Amino acid sequence: MARIAVVAGDGIGPEVVGQARKVLDAVLPGIEATEYDLGAARYHRTGEVLPDSVLTELAGHDAILLGAVGDPSVPPGVLERGLLLKLRFAFDQYVNLRPSRLWPGVPGPLATVKPGEVDLVVVREGTEGLYAGAGGSLHRDTPAEVATEESLNTRHGVERVVRDAFARAARRERRKVTLVHKTNVLTHAGSLWARAFEAVAAEHPDVATEYQHVDAAAMFLVTQPQRYDVVVTDNLFGDILTDIAAAVTGGIGLAASGCINPSGAYPSMFEPVHGSAPDIAGKGLADPVAAVLSAALLLDQLGHADAAARVTAAVGAELANRTPGVPLRTEEVGDRLAGYAVA
Amino acid sequence: MARIAVVAGDGIGPEVVGQARKVLDAVLPGIEATEYDLGAARYHRTGEVLPDSVLTELAGHDAILLGAVGDPSVPPGVLERGLLLKLRFAFDQYVNLRPSRLWPGVPGPLATVKPGEVDLVVVREGTEGLYAGAGGSLHRDTPAEVATEESLNTRHGVERVVRDAFARAARRERRKVTLVHKTNVLTHAGSLWARAFEAVAAEHPDVATEYQHVDAAAMFLVTQPQRYDVVVTDNLFGDILTDIAAAVTGGIGLAASGCINPSGAYPSMFEPVHGSAPDIAGKGLADPVAAVLSAALLLDQLGHADAAARVTAAVGAELANRTPGVPLRTEEVGDRLAGYAVA
Ligand SMILES: CC(C)[C@H](C(=O)O)[C@@H](O)C(=O)O
Ligand SMILES: CC(C)[C@H](C(=O)O)[C@@H](O)C(=O)O
Repeated sequence: MARIAVVAGDGIGPEVVGQARKVLDAVLPGIEATEYDLGAARYHRTGEVLPDSVLTELAGHDAILLGAVGDPSVPPGVLERGLLLKLRFAFDQYVNLRPSRLWPGVPGPLATVKPGEVDLVVVREGTEGLYAGAGGSLHRDTPAEVATEESLNTRHGVERVVRDAFARAARRERRKVTLVHKTNVLTHAGSLWARAFEAVAAEHPDVATEYQHVDAAAMFLVTQPQRYDVVVTDNLFGDILTDIAAAVTGGIGLAASGCINPSGAYPSMFEPVHGSAPDIAGKGLADPVAAVLSAALLLDQLGHADAAARVTAAVGAELANRTPGVPLRTEEVGDRLAGYAVA
Repeated sequence: MARIAVVAGDGIGPEVVGQARKVLDAVLPGIEATEYDLGAARYHRTGEVLPDSVLTELAGHDAILLGAVGDPSVPPGVLERGLLLKLRFAFDQYVNLRPSRLWPGVPGPLATVKPGEVDLVVVREGTEGLYAGAGGSLHRDTPAEVATEESLNTRHGVERVVRDAFARAARRERRKVTLVHKTNVLTHAGSLWARAFEAVAAEHPDVATEYQHVDAAAMFLVTQPQRYDVVVTDNLFGDILTDIAAAVTGGIGLAASGCINPSGAYPSMFEPVHGSAPDIAGKGLADPVAAVLSAALLLDQLGHADAAARVTAAVGAELANRTPGVPLRTEEVGDRLAGYAVA
């Protein structure tokens, strides 16, 4: 039976993860879950972000379910670099998977798009680019200060994530992959991405391809999100584009993500895209759908495609039955989802 | 009288620039304009992108009006790096100014936003960041290939553009500046931007400030574009965010931009955000509004605030009178705009 590590985290993290576990237990009884206390609260209490011993323990699990970590009281970068990105890099989670669907029943912000029309997945590279942490500064706090950030891209790293994107597209109905980059300005990295993309595309004559600059893609995600099937892009572009995709499909309250190591050598990690939302924490008002959809991605990754499909269908039922404007209760949504999933 | 250089460029460039000049001549008779033949066509004919002699001549003008350059037949980067970015960097155009308004009469894609509610300007840094051209690659075309792109940020470069943003905000009604960066991941450059922003903010107690990560800003531009007044951000983030802002306010067909050197030591350059649109080139179907609004920014920069306001008002009249779905004719729009502007 699957052994998962649970990092509920800060703010609304514990509330939404609670519902995700409820749904997991309903569709796949017997999952063994171990809680790990990580995030802003632990940082403030002990000064620790991610002790090596915890990293080692996490490595022994089949997957990690994460709620949300962070709080405005923690300086920027501490938990991001020290915990979230540390896990993505240490566990070589190079596929950062972010599906976006405009669910029937969800009032999206776009006048031009009908529910059901948007169904895309962004395959965001997760272990390279500007997230590598390569950069520094000189003459800090003087008029001569200079600061750099370096985007590192390897053929190894780019090709493997592009390959994953094509494999996913080949299993989908529309079978299309869009590469997004900025080849006209970032010519070195752009060229590497474009050539790796072409090479992998040649192995998939059945998959349609297109290329877009990141600024154009940001625009088309607003004006024509229907056009996308699978989008593959670098770490930072993926960060931005997935928030746009979430915005046009009803907000990050519904957006799930998986940080996946496809080899299985290390555990993959599943987390809602939203943050810890301290303003509504503890009030039972957070929407657990993003966490529950992340749990569905977890099930899928662990080979339980059937259970994953039941959870996804449960979310569809929940969203189709919501009355816009009626406030939701986290616990009740969780109960309903668990109910739908086993019905 | 003002001496301007005109680079009509490729595709729809000459058509839309023709209307911008028509409107300029109407509101400010006697402008001296010199045409420069640059772009994809010249590149194919002569192999030249931007000869030094032309750069020197351009430097002698009060401003540059540019239509659009580029064509799919030119390899990515050649005209971008060799012409557009070359001019921005050579003429130290560090303020890349991109206003977005949801004009009454324009059908925006958002169900949640009413015409007149969005009126923001992005002050995008224009001479640093990932656009510096610092990067390279090793072991090209082998499995060991690595490619880098480096973002270079100086206190000098950041502070001056932040200062410009605050000065603009101080002259606007809402007096608010939003800094957009990714301080939680790009900690070195992010810290420099945040500290420069704080220092300049301290000189402007009358201007409200906020900070947002770029992914959150991309989302809020879709869900709540009304919240922004002046946005200041780095070169690449500005590239992406301004296309989102354009998308939510009716598309890049209406989006103007100025690449401004506020010192006046070199000419500033004004160009529509859209590209050369080869598919509709020569058909008289391109909307010249973005080019005409760019000409209004040019007038403003050269100290003709009154003429600029008349052109902007003319655009307002034109857009308010359009019937959605009725195709437009480039020449006719130009004629109408010139008429409104002098009425
Ligand atoms: C919190 C931050 C480090 C993270 C990222 O930039 O990847 C977040 O924005 C995300 O998208 O998961
Ligand atoms: C053509 C390209 C170099 C340019 C940029 O990236 O700045 C364009 O996208 C723009 O926004 O003006």
